[in-house]
Amino acid sequence: MQKPSIPKGTRDFLPHEVVKRDYIFKIIKETFIKYGYKGIHTPVMELLSTLTGKYGEEGDKLLFKVLNNGDYLAKADHDALSAKDSNKLTSSISKRGLRYDLTVPFARYVVQHQHEISLPFKRYAIAPVWRADRPQKGRYQEFYQCDVDFVGTDSLMCEAELVTIIDEVFARLGINVTIMVNHRKVLQGITDVCGLSDDFMTWTIAIDKLDKIGAEKVISDLVGRGLDQAAVEKSLALIQMTSLDDLSSALASSPIGITGIEELRTFHAYLDPVGHKQEIRFNGTLARGLNYYTGCIFEVKANDAQMGSILGGGRYDDLTGVFGLKGVSGVGISFGAERIYDIMEELELWPIEELQSAKAIILAMDEDAHRYAFAQASLMRRAGIAIDIYPDVAKFKKQIKYAHQGGYPYAVIIGGDELEKGVVTVKDMKQGTQTEQTTQALIAMWS
Amino acid sequence: MQKPSIPKGTRDFLPHEVVKRDYIFKIIKETFIKYGYKGIHTPVMELLSTLTGKYGEEGDKLLFKVLNNGDYLAKADHDALSAKDSNKLTSSISKRGLRYDLTVPFARYVVQHQHEISLPFKRYAIAPVWRADRPQKGRYQEFYQCDVDFVGTDSLMCEAELVTIIDEVFARLGINVTIMVNHRKVLQGITDVCGLSDDFMTWTIAIDKLDKIGAEKVISDLVGRGLDQAAVEKSLALIQMTSLDDLSSALASSPIGITGIEELRTFHAYLDPVGHKQEIRFNGTLARGLNYYTGCIFEVKANDAQMGSILGGGRYDDLTGVFGLKGVSGVGISFGAERIYDIMEELELWPIEELQSAKAIILAMDEDAHRYAFAQASLMRRAGIAIDIYPDVAKFKKQIKYAHQGGYPYAVIIGGDELEKGVVTVKDMKQGTQTEQTTQALIAMWS
Repeated sequence: MQKPSIPKGTRDFLPHEVVKRDYIFKIIKETFIKYGYKGIHTPVMELLSTLTGKYGEEGDKLLFKVLNNGDYLAKADHDALSAKDSNKLTSSISKRGLRYDLTVPFARYVVQHQHEISLPFKRYAIAPVWRADRPQKGRYQEFYQCDVDFVGTDSLMCEAELVTIIDEVFARLGINVTIMVNHRKVLQGITDVCGLSDDFMTWTIAIDKLDKIGAEKVISDLVGRGLDQAAVEKSLALIQMTSLDDLSSALASSPIGITGIEELRTFHAYLDPVGHKQEIRFNGTLARGLNYYTGCIFEVKANDAQMGSILGGGRYDDLTGVFGLKGVSGVGISFGAERIYDIMEELELWPIEELQSAKAIILAMDEDAHRYAFAQASLMRRAGIAIDIYPDVAKFKKQIKYAHQGGYPYAVIIGGDELEKGVVTVKDMKQGTQTEQTTQALIAMWS
Repeated sequence: MQKPSIPKGTRDFLPHEVVKRDYIFKIIKETFIKYGYKGIHTPVMELLSTLTGKYGEEGDKLLFKVLNNGDYLAKADHDALSAKDSNKLTSSISKRGLRYDLTVPFARYVVQHQHEISLPFKRYAIAPVWRADRPQKGRYQEFYQCDVDFVGTDSLMCEAELVTIIDEVFARLGINVTIMVNHRKVLQGITDVCGLSDDFMTWTIAIDKLDKIGAEKVISDLVGRGLDQAAVEKSLALIQMTSLDDLSSALASSPIGITGIEELRTFHAYLDPVGHKQEIRFNGTLARGLNYYTGCIFEVKANDAQMGSILGGGRYDDLTGVFGLKGVSGVGISFGAERIYDIMEELELWPIEELQSAKAIILAMDEDAHRYAFAQASLMRRAGIAIDIYPDVAKFKKQIKYAHQGGYPYAVIIGGDELEKGVVTVKDMKQGTQTEQTTQALIAMWS
């Protein structure tokens, strides 16, 4: 007999976890919809030709590949098979893979359906993705992404709109956060005025680690890669500046840097009159070392928990070029639902009442009472009240134990006495108090 | 440049389709929760050791298998590789597969988490499953199942509860259906009294086709398989009976048949006092040729559309035995969401208002108006109203065309005039009429 288990790096969720996860997804989804974003749905399996080469060499290795069906060896690459070369063989025995993120499928979707959608296009997607990472604490092979993107326009209003979404979602979840904002063109301006333009990507990837390894190590790393020490030190001083006005003077000689500053100002011209609950802070050290960002970049951290970034995003100038559609600029953010869950747990932010699914469980003491109880349950359910009922006429002790384990706020008890009087006994499971009520009174009270 | 596409048999969904699909899932999920069922979540990838052998030989072939990561050929079965034997090789290069249904993962889950859940256990799951069927009209390789099961009790109340769920879900969706009920023990009783007990499964599979091929062909099929013609004809007469009382007399000599009748009566003793909106009909010809059903069986058909079964289910006596936990009886049903969608389309049953996501789109005529417009959008969104805003100051013609294409009920237009007066112009997109309003008045009207 096999002992049941699941693949390493994947998870089962128990009912109390599902309720909490659904709560986070619900808040995020409701907010996306309220701001005019539309849900799309793409298949879990994409063609490997869509996925391969989009995430770098390392990413390609992390793709889960699905074996072709039937006699897949019949069409297998003969040489690769003889040489036992796994890498070379794969493309001849597998043409599908599990999606690695929601961005590449979205880009594919926009191009494939360009005549069925209207640009500008606002879409959200809340769905699982798969990566064959080595499983470790807090890192899973199957996890959810919550993405929202506004594409087909370069208006800075989109950035402002996404930040108001961030502001609202975390306010509703009860998490105090800091929303950090930077601009890739400001970073380019800084490398311009420091004479480091040719090493922009190297420099960006290095300063992305500033938080973790500190300035000294970033400097020695970059100097080790052949960058001029004085220039690097100057650049590190510039990214520490917190005033856009000061930075504007410092970048005066860099047209691209000034463009970045101007775009940040336009972003604020939309956002500032609207106000926000969470702190929004310009942060010159924020780099987001992904080479597809070209404009504003965002990152969110929780103020009251030790945790990495719980949201990231930014503007990209060329979402769909790789699939043959040029000139589609867009901006998007991705909520880190798994980490948000961990923070809600740590800070005990769950709205207990709202997560309670059934208001009560009905317990019956004999056969007649049980049939009557089922009819009462139906009445309450039709009135919109979530009600459970124990399915058997078991001993009271067993039933009440089940009611306690299930965390129901109330138990509704029906026996011969209640049947005769036409009432039910309602037990408050926390207080332990009992009252007699009619079903109609209960419906009035609970609906 | 590659032309983007997706694997055969999978689908992308456009926003207007996602809204409709989400509507069906929402109604189903809300009802499940109201009746006390709890959501669980299992990974999309299961171990192939969990899946293989559970769906018959044909089912095993339809499993999507995921290639092991890294140098998978290093541990490949050498003999199978030399012989180019795909079937034999698979288990050595693939240990994970995509789930084929939600039932086997549920059984695996109950056993694996038996000490974390309490029996009786009521669970629902609404999630995609994968089958490598040959793609054809209406049949997909990735599709959703909506399952609800009540396990760990043999109370007939569960059957009654599931039927009230069926009744409520289809009433809320506006689909008139017939809920057909039968009992496997009644079918066994019929084969008993006709002397066909030894051929029960053969007989069951044959009568399952009665609808499609007619009585004559079923008889000749069974006679061709060596069953006695007179006995088969008698059995076909018995399954046509519609009165439980008549059937009870006919099955008097079969204890198992009488048990089936008694269980149907107990089921009705729970259900009938509660009432129902949809027709519930005993149907002796309903067989559901799956060998794991042991008690009541259900099937639902839409009255006003030509379509196969849109729901199926029944009681099984041994959900988890294959994973080492004996004695877990249960009953479950599965809503055919894809077919329900097609019926809603055909009969135009969508609640248009409820599917409307954004109430209006705001269009601005110049830069100043656009920033003011963004602030008005934020006010309305904070009041809970779903509002969109065109991101650019484009020509009015372009913006209003976009508003028409998007199907927004209203366009809110803001230009210099409106800015000066402190109002907005609200255009009813269907009527074409325009009025001036303050944002506050709009909020009062729409929230």
